[in-house]
Amino acid sequence: MIRPRTPPGVMELLPREQIAFQRMLDVIRRNYERFGFLPVETPVFELSDVLLTKSGGETERQVYFVQSTGALANAAADGEKGDGGSTATLPELALRFDLTVPLARYVAEHEHELSFPFRRYQMQRVYRGERAQRGRFREFYQCDIDVIGKDALNIRYDAEVMAVIHAVFSELGIGAFKVQLNNRKLMRGFFEAQGVTDPQKQALVLREVDKIDKRGADYVRETLAGPDFGLPVAAVERILAFVEVRSASHEDALDQIGQVLAQAGDQASETLRAGAGELREVLELVKALGVPESAYCLNFSIARGLDYYTGTVYETQLVDHPGIGSICSGGRYEDLASHYTKSKLPGVGISIGLTRLFWQLREAGLVEGIAESSVQAMVALMDEAQLPEALDIARHLRAGGINTEVQMEARKVGKQFQYASRAGIRFVVLAGDDELARGVVAVKDLVREQQFEVARSELAGTLRVELEQTRALAGR
Amino acid sequence: MIRPRTPPGVMELLPREQIAFQRMLDVIRRNYERFGFLPVETPVFELSDVLLTKSGGETERQVYFVQSTGALANAAADGEKGDGGSTATLPELALRFDLTVPLARYVAEHEHELSFPFRRYQMQRVYRGERAQRGRFREFYQCDIDVIGKDALNIRYDAEVMAVIHAVFSELGIGAFKVQLNNRKLMRGFFEAQGVTDPQKQALVLREVDKIDKRGADYVRETLAGPDFGLPVAAVERILAFVEVRSASHEDALDQIGQVLAQAGDQASETLRAGAGELREVLELVKALGVPESAYCLNFSIARGLDYYTGTVYETQLVDHPGIGSICSGGRYEDLASHYTKSKLPGVGISIGLTRLFWQLREAGLVEGIAESSVQAMVALMDEAQLPEALDIARHLRAGGINTEVQMEARKVGKQFQYASRAGIRFVVLAGDDELARGVVAVKDLVREQQFEVARSELAGTLRVELEQTRALAGR
Repeated sequence: MIRPRTPPGVMELLPREQIAFQRMLDVIRRNYERFGFLPVETPVFELSDVLLTKSGGETERQVYFVQSTGALANAAADGEKGDGGSTATLPELALRFDLTVPLARYVAEHEHELSFPFRRYQMQRVYRGERAQRGRFREFYQCDIDVIGKDALNIRYDAEVMAVIHAVFSELGIGAFKVQLNNRKLMRGFFEAQGVTDPQKQALVLREVDKIDKRGADYVRETLAGPDFGLPVAAVERILAFVEVRSASHEDALDQIGQVLAQAGDQASETLRAGAGELREVLELVKALGVPESAYCLNFSIARGLDYYTGTVYETQLVDHPGIGSICSGGRYEDLASHYTKSKLPGVGISIGLTRLFWQLREAGLVEGIAESSVQAMVALMDEAQLPEALDIARHLRAGGINTEVQMEARKVGKQFQYASRAGIRFVVLAGDDELARGVVAVKDLVREQQFEVARSELAGTLRVELEQTRALAGR
Repeated sequence: MIRPRTPPGVMELLPREQIAFQRMLDVIRRNYERFGFLPVETPVFELSDVLLTKSGGETERQVYFVQSTGALANAAADGEKGDGGSTATLPELALRFDLTVPLARYVAEHEHELSFPFRRYQMQRVYRGERAQRGRFREFYQCDIDVIGKDALNIRYDAEVMAVIHAVFSELGIGAFKVQLNNRKLMRGFFEAQGVTDPQKQALVLREVDKIDKRGADYVRETLAGPDFGLPVAAVERILAFVEVRSASHEDALDQIGQVLAQAGDQASETLRAGAGELREVLELVKALGVPESAYCLNFSIARGLDYYTGTVYETQLVDHPGIGSICSGGRYEDLASHYTKSKLPGVGISIGLTRLFWQLREAGLVEGIAESSVQAMVALMDEAQLPEALDIARHLRAGGINTEVQMEARKVGKQFQYASRAGIRFVVLAGDDELARGVVAVKDLVREQQFEVARSELAGTLRVELEQTRALAGR
C-alpha cells in the first residue's frame, strides 16, 4: 500500500475550494476577453534550447527538466560509460517557468499568421524548482495579458492594460485596490540628473532605498553618501524625496510629474521628458477609459525588473492589506523576442499569480476559500418508486440552465438536507406523492431559509430568477 | 538566434483555432456541471512512487520524468561515481499520463473530506512519451467525469453517465452520435457458457474477433476453431453471432438481452443474469433521463480494458464517421484506489480525449477549426481627436457585456474593416463627427452584411439582442 500524497510545493484544492478558485479564473478570463484579448495556450514543456536562451543563473537553476523513460535510460547509459557526457548535455525538454518566454517563442514562430498589435491572454500553470517553503509554489497559475506591436506600439496600450487591471479586480471583489504607476524613463532620467547614470548602479541605489522601512532613513542616507556609492548629500536627499512620491488624485499625479520636470528645469534630459510625457498620456487615457481616480496613483519607487522593463511599470496593491505585496504587476518592454526573430516586437503586459494570490487571500481571511457549490439544485428522493419522476424533474431543471444533482437512491429526507447543506447546494427540490398529484414541487431555499411550492413546469424559470436576483444583489 | 519551434507531438493553436477549441472545452464543462459534477484539478506531476504503483510495462515506458536542475546535477554526479546508481533510482517526479491515477490518489488522500457518491469532473492535459507520429500527441487534454462510491455504487449512476455523454455531444453539435453500450458481466457470462472461462483467453478471442472486418469471417472462424483456441465450431458461430449484436431501438435492445438469456436457458450463470439485469436497468433509466433512443444502442463487441472494467462499458461513435472511432469511452470498475487505501471505492466514468478529437474533426472537415472571434465588437477610430469618445463607447459596450476591442490608432477605415473581417469580429462600431453630434453610432454587422444606426445609449443592449438571436437560431 502506497501513501497517497502530492509532491511538496503544489496547491491541491478540495472541490468547494476548487469552485472558489475556478470562479476567480473565470472572472479574470471574462474581463480579459471583454477587452478584446485573444486566448493562447502553449505546451507545458518547451525544447530546452528554446526555453533557456539566456545563460540564466537564477532562472536556470529553478528549471524542471523533462525526460521520457527512454531518454532517461540513454542518459544513464552515457553516464556509466564515464565519458562525463551526462553532465554536459541538458535533457531535451523543460517545463515553462513563466508565460513570457513561451509568448516570445509563439509570436516569433507564428509572426506571419498573427495581426499586430496582438492582444493575447494566457492562463496556465508554470513551474519553478523553488525551495519548498510555506506559501512558495513549485506549480502555480499565471494569468497574463500582453499587447505586442510590430516595430512600434503606441503608449495608449499601456493605459488600456491599466483599465483591464481595474476591471479584473473590481469584479473579483477582494477589496479596495490601487494600481501603482511609474515610468522607467522618468526614473532613469531622474537618476541620471543625480549623477547615477549606470543602470546597474541605479538598481543598486534602488535596492538600498528599498531598505528604508526596515533599516530607517538614516541608514540609507549614510550608505548612499558613503564610500560604496559616494553620492553628494543633496542628491541623496532628492533621491529619497523622489522615491517617496505617491499621488493623492489624478490632478496631483499630473502635478507631481510637473514638479519633477520643473526641478530638472533646463537640465531635463530627453529621457526624463519622454518618461514624463508617457506618464501624462497614460494618466489621461486611463481617466478617459473610466477608471476612477481612487484606483490608481503614481508611485515613483516602483522599478520592477530593471533590465527588462523600459517604460511604464505597474504594481497593484490591496489598499487595506499592503503587506500582501503586489497582486498584479507588469509593464512596457522594448523587444519581446530578440532571441528568436530579427523583428522588433515591443509590448506591454501584466501577470496575476493566481495560485499565490488565492493562498494569500485565504491566509488573510479575505476570501472564504470555500464557495457555494456549482451545483445549484438537488432533487431529493424519498421513495424509490419516484425515481423516474425525480429524473424527469432534474432533466427539466438542466434544460432550463440549472446545475442539478439527483439523489439516485432514496434516503431519509433529513440526511439529504444535511448533505445539500454541507455541499453548499442552495435549492433542494422535493416531490412526494401529494406534490406529484398536484403537479407541483416543494423547494427549500437553504440560503434564504425559505420553503415554497411552484408548478412543476415553472420550476427552472423560478430558480433562474432567484439566482439572477442574488447575483444582481451581490453586484456580480 | 534560435529557431522558435515547439517539441514534436504537441498541438499548439492559433488564436481563432484556440477559441474554437476553448468553446468545446466550455461546452463540456458546462454540461458536466449541469449534471452536478464538481471540479477537481491535480498537479501536473505526481511523486513517481505514487504514480507508478503498478510495475507498468507499456505505461511506464511512456512516462515523462521530471527533475529540477539540482536533482539532475546530483544524478549526473552519482552516475560519474560509476556506482550504477543512476539507472536504479527513478527521478522523484513524473508527469501524469491520465486523470484516473491522480483521481485515485486524490480520493484516497481526501477520503474523509469528500461526500460519497463523489461526482467529479477534471479537464486537464496529460502526458505520454508516444512515438512521434501524425495524429499522436504527447500532450493532450482529457475531459473526464467519474462517480465514486464508498463500498458500493448503485448501477443507476451508469445511466446518469450516459445521459451526460448525450448532453455533451448534443451541444457540441458535431453530428449524429450513438453511445454503444455493453456489459462486461453479460459478456463474461456468455463466453463462459461457450467454454471460454479464462479472462485472458476471452481477451484473446475478442482480439481475433476484432479482425473480422480486415481478415474476414472465415479467417476468424478457422483461427478460433484451430489449434490455438480449439473451440467447437458451434461455439465459434455463437460467438460470432453474439459480437455482431447491435440493437435498432430501445425495445430491440431489451429483446436482444432477452434472447441471450433465453439461449442460455437454465444454464445461464449468475454472472450472465447479473449482467443482463444491469443492462436492462441502465437502458430503462437512460430512457427515463430523456435520452432519445436514436442516441444509444447495444453493441456486444465492445469490451474496453478487460482487466479494469467490470460491468457497464461505453463507447461513442459519430454515426456518419465511424472511422474516427470512439470519441468518448469508459465504464464501470470495481475498485478505484486499492493501491492507496483499504476502502473499497467502486466507480463509473468516461473520458473525452479532446485534443485528438479536435484534430480528427478538423481533419474530417467536421469543424471549421476556426471560430468567430471571442471579440464581438470593434470600435473603429478614424480621427485621433475622437479617441476619448471611442474609449467611452468601448467602456459602455464592455459594461453591457460585449467583448470589445478599440482601434487605438486612427487608420483608413477600409483597413479597419479588413482587420475586423479577418479577425472574425462581427460588429464594427463607427462614430464620426456627424454621428457623435447626433448621439448615435453606426454599426456594421459583418455576419449579416448590414449596416444600421443606433442611439449611443442603446448600443450594448442592441448588440446583446443580436448576439442572443443568433445563438437562439443556432440552437445554442
